[in-house]
Amino acid sequence: MERPKVVILGAGYGGLVTAIRLQKKMRGRELDVTLVNKHDYHYITTHLHMPAAGTDHHDHARVAIADLIDPRKIHFRKSTVLEIRPEHKEVVLEDGILSYDYLVVGLGSETETFGIPGMREYAMSIKSINSVRFIRQHIEYMFAKSKVYPKRKDYLTFVVGGAGFTGTEFVGELADRVPVLCRTYDVDPADVRIINIEASPSPLPPGLPVDLVEYGMEVMRRKGVQYRLSTVIKACTEEGVVLGSGELIRAGTIIWSGGVRGNALLQEAGFEVQRGRVKVDSCLRSYQYPNVWVTGDCAIVMSPEGTPYPATAQIAVQMGTNAARNILQTVRGKELRPFVYDYKGTVASLGRGEAVGLLKVRKVKGRFAAFLKKCIDTRYLFLIGGLPLVWKKVIFKQKYMERSRHVPN
Amino acid sequence: MERPKVVILGAGYGGLVTAIRLQKKMRGRELDVTLVNKHDYHYITTHLHMPAAGTDHHDHARVAIADLIDPRKIHFRKSTVLEIRPEHKEVVLEDGILSYDYLVVGLGSETETFGIPGMREYAMSIKSINSVRFIRQHIEYMFAKSKVYPKRKDYLTFVVGGAGFTGTEFVGELADRVPVLCRTYDVDPADVRIINIEASPSPLPPGLPVDLVEYGMEVMRRKGVQYRLSTVIKACTEEGVVLGSGELIRAGTIIWSGGVRGNALLQEAGFEVQRGRVKVDSCLRSYQYPNVWVTGDCAIVMSPEGTPYPATAQIAVQMGTNAARNILQTVRGKELRPFVYDYKGTVASLGRGEAVGLLKVRKVKGRFAAFLKKCIDTRYLFLIGGLPLVWKKVIFKQKYMERSRHVPN
Repeated sequence: MERPKVVILGAGYGGLVTAIRLQKKMRGRELDVTLVNKHDYHYITTHLHMPAAGTDHHDHARVAIADLIDPRKIHFRKSTVLEIRPEHKEVVLEDGILSYDYLVVGLGSETETFGIPGMREYAMSIKSINSVRFIRQHIEYMFAKSKVYPKRKDYLTFVVGGAGFTGTEFVGELADRVPVLCRTYDVDPADVRIINIEASPSPLPPGLPVDLVEYGMEVMRRKGVQYRLSTVIKACTEEGVVLGSGELIRAGTIIWSGGVRGNALLQEAGFEVQRGRVKVDSCLRSYQYPNVWVTGDCAIVMSPEGTPYPATAQIAVQMGTNAARNILQTVRGKELRPFVYDYKGTVASLGRGEAVGLLKVRKVKGRFAAFLKKCIDTRYLFLIGGLPLVWKKVIFKQKYMERSRHVPN
Repeated sequence: MERPKVVILGAGYGGLVTAIRLQKKMRGRELDVTLVNKHDYHYITTHLHMPAAGTDHHDHARVAIADLIDPRKIHFRKSTVLEIRPEHKEVVLEDGILSYDYLVVGLGSETETFGIPGMREYAMSIKSINSVRFIRQHIEYMFAKSKVYPKRKDYLTFVVGGAGFTGTEFVGELADRVPVLCRTYDVDPADVRIINIEASPSPLPPGLPVDLVEYGMEVMRRKGVQYRLSTVIKACTEEGVVLGSGELIRAGTIIWSGGVRGNALLQEAGFEVQRGRVKVDSCLRSYQYPNVWVTGDCAIVMSPEGTPYPATAQIAVQMGTNAARNILQTVRGKELRPFVYDYKGTVASLGRGEAVGLLKVRKVKGRFAAFLKKCIDTRYLFLIGGLPLVWKKVIFKQKYMERSRHVPN
């Protein structure tokens, strides 16, 4: 008898957790599971703001998939997905075709540029290990370049478009990194500008109470961050960003964290999407293809109030757990369990030792919030890799942090 | 009674050693000495190939002038020289005018591009702390960029024009650095190309015997360096270098170490120059202005055979010592001592633990030559800063070297 074939596309939060839960919960060789991912590592997207700014090593934001997956239970295939053919129950990879009985799509998101001209060419986004290594090196390159072209003060202007979760966390780290880079490159800190541009009148992740937003802005301002609120970016050019007012801010670095949309492959495959994301049923399956689960940023899950939940790591992890369980229930011919989102809260880092957030409804800020943030990060590592991973990523990591702040002589 | 005013322009090998020798040898407050330098540090040009490749920290190639100069004897002025007016015995700085009785010009060299189109715009040169920090970051930036634009293999091609002393030493370090960068950026080493282009049929510093050149080339080839000998660069473009044959080598990085000429300020001041360098008398003074000493790369010193000595750190240091002595002899109304070059040999590094060279006429190579090279470097540090400097730069340095080769996790 053929075992049911499960193919999981993407080893982000949703896909990886699905795989790990299947690995744990399936009986013997109940399923034939293949996990497909472009890289041989999983990256911790919520941590990418640190390597992007250079305050942590990128290796601390990724985990080798081989360290998490038991090859006797899950077959890992390093490949890039080119096409999904839900009507043929197959997936086209760059190096072959995979057929499936059940599919889990966790292919994550893409940058949403809202059609702003030049954004794709001149702005960088915090989205992968490759992109954050590039951002980190770009920033440092600008410091080095500013000393060779001393008249180009714009090389030391860093514009971040979007002051939501990612934008805020990145700006906090960048502001922490600047003094170190100034010492390394003999740059006058007064020449460096960090400008965070936000279309809405209020920065920081949406949903935070006003007093926490004010606290967060004050922390950022003390670090030298300038806010331009209620301000839209009309275009990006080689010189910098053009604001809605027509003002040009000359900048050597533009980081765009203004929005994401679901992976384009879903729309190309004929799924009905909204901003690239697929609306799923109560058990996270496509309405069109009930043998296709969609997790993480690719999916839209509606709250009981009828509004979509924001795409976060927290919900993606819970979706992975639910998808794994429901695949097993389906194979075993049992009743599916609807997905219920257990919102635990939101904590946004503001750089070293500072954070703001909500635990359910309780406000947290400062050192305590920063400590909580670390606990949340550590809890996730424990979830996917147990104590050995916590040891490797949390304890060992401190060494690099000290180093990256050290300037010899 | 007014003390004779001595102004020293430039704190490179020639200028700094002149200052330090004057500081040591003058009696009481015999002279009013001012040392002018663009930066508040002296850099060790012969060491710059390492920070340029990223195998050592740039701080290990520089020394704070305040650590070397006694402010009671030498006045240090951080400023940029705009103009020398030898007929008025004055120097125009960016922030004022200095008059002098005796002048020492040690303003170093500039890149000689031989009029090759695009060289100034698209190639970088190993010439200062600022330039090598830029080169180091440019190299690393190319590795990061290659992962974001995976089709652009040219980002991983590094062209070095000139296989003389500096070119060879830099290429050796770069080849050592590549494996570390490949690991950090998940780059396949087979995609990286280091191409050293040399117009003459033989690489490595001129004057080495054939067997040492062959040994050196073999060491380099084992590290993956490709030589293109008897090959001229016709132009540099945004894409790469165009060879004499018309062939285009696409490259994201072009380093030019094909030649230097004396600082342009000398010619602008009316000194008779050859490739920007001033021919000096037997006591290192300008033939036109006997109160002007010229040291280091700005001067041409003729050997007894009638050919000019090559511009090296070794000769610059000896020139500084002679200039200081002869300024004191002049002030004291005593007879000047002609400059006699004591050639001790040449050792060129080929990267970690490898070097080739001549000690007078004795051939050295391999680990022993690399050890000798370190001794030569250390001897210079001792000469200018005594044991404390040796401790700081040689002993402490090891820490960074280990770090720069370490890839976390």
